[in-house]
Amino acid sequence: MTRFEPADPDFEARCRDSFSRQGAMALLGAVLARIEPGLCEIHLPYKPELTQQHGFYHAGMVATVADNAAGYAGYSLMPAGTSVLTVEFKINLMAPAKGELVIARGQVIKPGRTLTIAQATVTAVNEGHETECALLQQTLICIHGREDPG
Amino acid sequence: MTRFEPADPDFEARCRDSFSRQGAMALLGAVLARIEPGLCEIHLPYKPELTQQHGFYHAGMVATVADNAAGYAGYSLMPAGTSVLTVEFKINLMAPAKGELVIARGQVIKPGRTLTIAQATVTAVNEGHETECALLQQTLICIHGREDPG
Amino acid sequence: MTRFEPADPDFEARCRDSFSRQGAMALLGAVLARIEPGLCEIHLPYKPELTQQHGFYHAGMVATVADNAAGYAGYSLMPAGTSVLTVEFKINLMAPAKGELVIARGQVIKPGRTLTIAQATVTAVNEGHETECALLQQTLICIHGREDPG
Amino acid sequence: MTRFEPADPDFEARCRDSFSRQGAMALLGAVLARIEPGLCEIHLPYKPELTQQHGFYHAGMVATVADNAAGYAGYSLMPAGTSVLTVEFKINLMAPAKGELVIARGQVIKPGRTLTIAQATVTAVNEGHETECALLQQTLICIHGREDPG
Repeated sequence: MTRFEPADPDFEARCRDSFSRQGAMALLGAVLARIEPGLCEIHLPYKPELTQQHGFYHAGMVATVADNAAGYAGYSLMPAGTSVLTVEFKINLMAPAKGELVIARGQVIKPGRTLTIAQATVTAVNEGHETECALLQQTLICIHGREDPG
Repeated sequence: MTRFEPADPDFEARCRDSFSRQGAMALLGAVLARIEPGLCEIHLPYKPELTQQHGFYHAGMVATVADNAAGYAGYSLMPAGTSVLTVEFKINLMAPAKGELVIARGQVIKPGRTLTIAQATVTAVNEGHETECALLQQTLICIHGREDPG
Repeated sequence: MTRFEPADPDFEARCRDSFSRQGAMALLGAVLARIEPGLCEIHLPYKPELTQQHGFYHAGMVATVADNAAGYAGYSLMPAGTSVLTVEFKINLMAPAKGELVIARGQVIKPGRTLTIAQATVTAVNEGHETECALLQQTLICIHGREDPG
Repeated sequence: MTRFEPADPDFEARCRDSFSRQGAMALLGAVLARIEPGLCEIHLPYKPELTQQHGFYHAGMVATVADNAAGYAGYSLMPAGTSVLTVEFKINLMAPAKGELVIARGQVIKPGRTLTIAQATVTAVNEGHETECALLQQTLICIHGREDPG
């Protein structure tokens, strides 16, 4: 895995601050477990409100934390005074997300001044056993000169 | 737009029943506004809990209702006694989803015994004005011999 | 379908000139059949060199003309003095591309100063009968201040 | 990287035979450089006929070998007497594919009886220096009871 140098030494505070202002993360109960240069890990503990019709995590909930994990992995490498938007993503749901916890791990594949390509894997932890259940590939855009609102 | 014949005359009850068992739809406050053979419309009224860091709808919330609208469009054409899973989807977020309501409209592009290809467009309604904000392309799989739990 | 105003009145000459400099289109035998503001149609007549192991058009050949049809649809709306690159695309291969001709029809979904979202459908013409065989969704980037080499 | 057990001990001959019947691979001049259980590497030496308008490898040519590398990685794990089709793929073109050689490396992420998820990375070798230029994520379907024609 490539090691990246962050452009902003305060990237962690900037990412955590941004994450804390996402109403959707609070609604889901998602936790920003880890943020490093080009890496991000989000945990989503199970609750019945996150499910689809079979009682597993809903594909949309899995996609939401996967998109976010890849997005903050990308944002960690962007300069201060910028904001980030998801241009697009694609996700394969490879196995039912069944268990007590879902973990999304994002990583930057190719950072860029305008566009950044990132990836996330999602695993479901069922009675302590981790199974890979989704794979996401994403394009981010860095908006210069527009900081996230404080 | 192609007109489809449903294999199951009770498709509407089957889809509405499945939708009502998705905890995630209740959590978000999403409403199944319309279900016809090969078509589905889902409404997601604004609440602060659905936002990202700029106060717009979170990309994951947009993706969740888009995935679901395309998924139920597909499920409407599947036979009784089957269940549906999203294999994968790809979504472009074309404009900020800003406003009082998000509408996801799903339609089947190509139904199939095993795989179905569907699409969804998402618009944001801001002070009554509708703007296209996302486009999704999806692959569904029909699981035969396993009905959704009643 | 949305009607677009081209920023460059000479868009057709600019697109045809660019197309004619693509060695890959000549190798495949692809023809730029139609270019209008936000629209592009490319024809790919059958030859055995375009096939996969079952004798149908290779998925890569289908993807190549679909990517190009969407790309030139996008490029038709870009200003003079710019060039275009595909950021990413996603394609569903919905039916075998079998027949004497493949037609890719691209259209712009959302034009933008930097990013443009486009789509393409591909049909195969078999003994005169047209069947939809692929659907592509694409993100393009417009590079300002760098014209295509003359 | 996961190690896979092939279901068919003769997977290599089966894959090489299938590859050799793809007219498109001969047209492009692509070479099946390596096939192992769940892995495949395809080489595409430069020729002007593979280019886009700036003289780099055409996105469609890059996508074609990436799709094929992931596809044969998947096919290597499928049983004898089956055939493989690409359901869909998504590719990010991260840097211009410029140089004397393009290498596509495919690997299986999750094999399955019906659907297999695979991935490919593409690098361009320019004066001996390798640069990552594309990333592909793919869904394959295994068709049972229909062997590739001999």
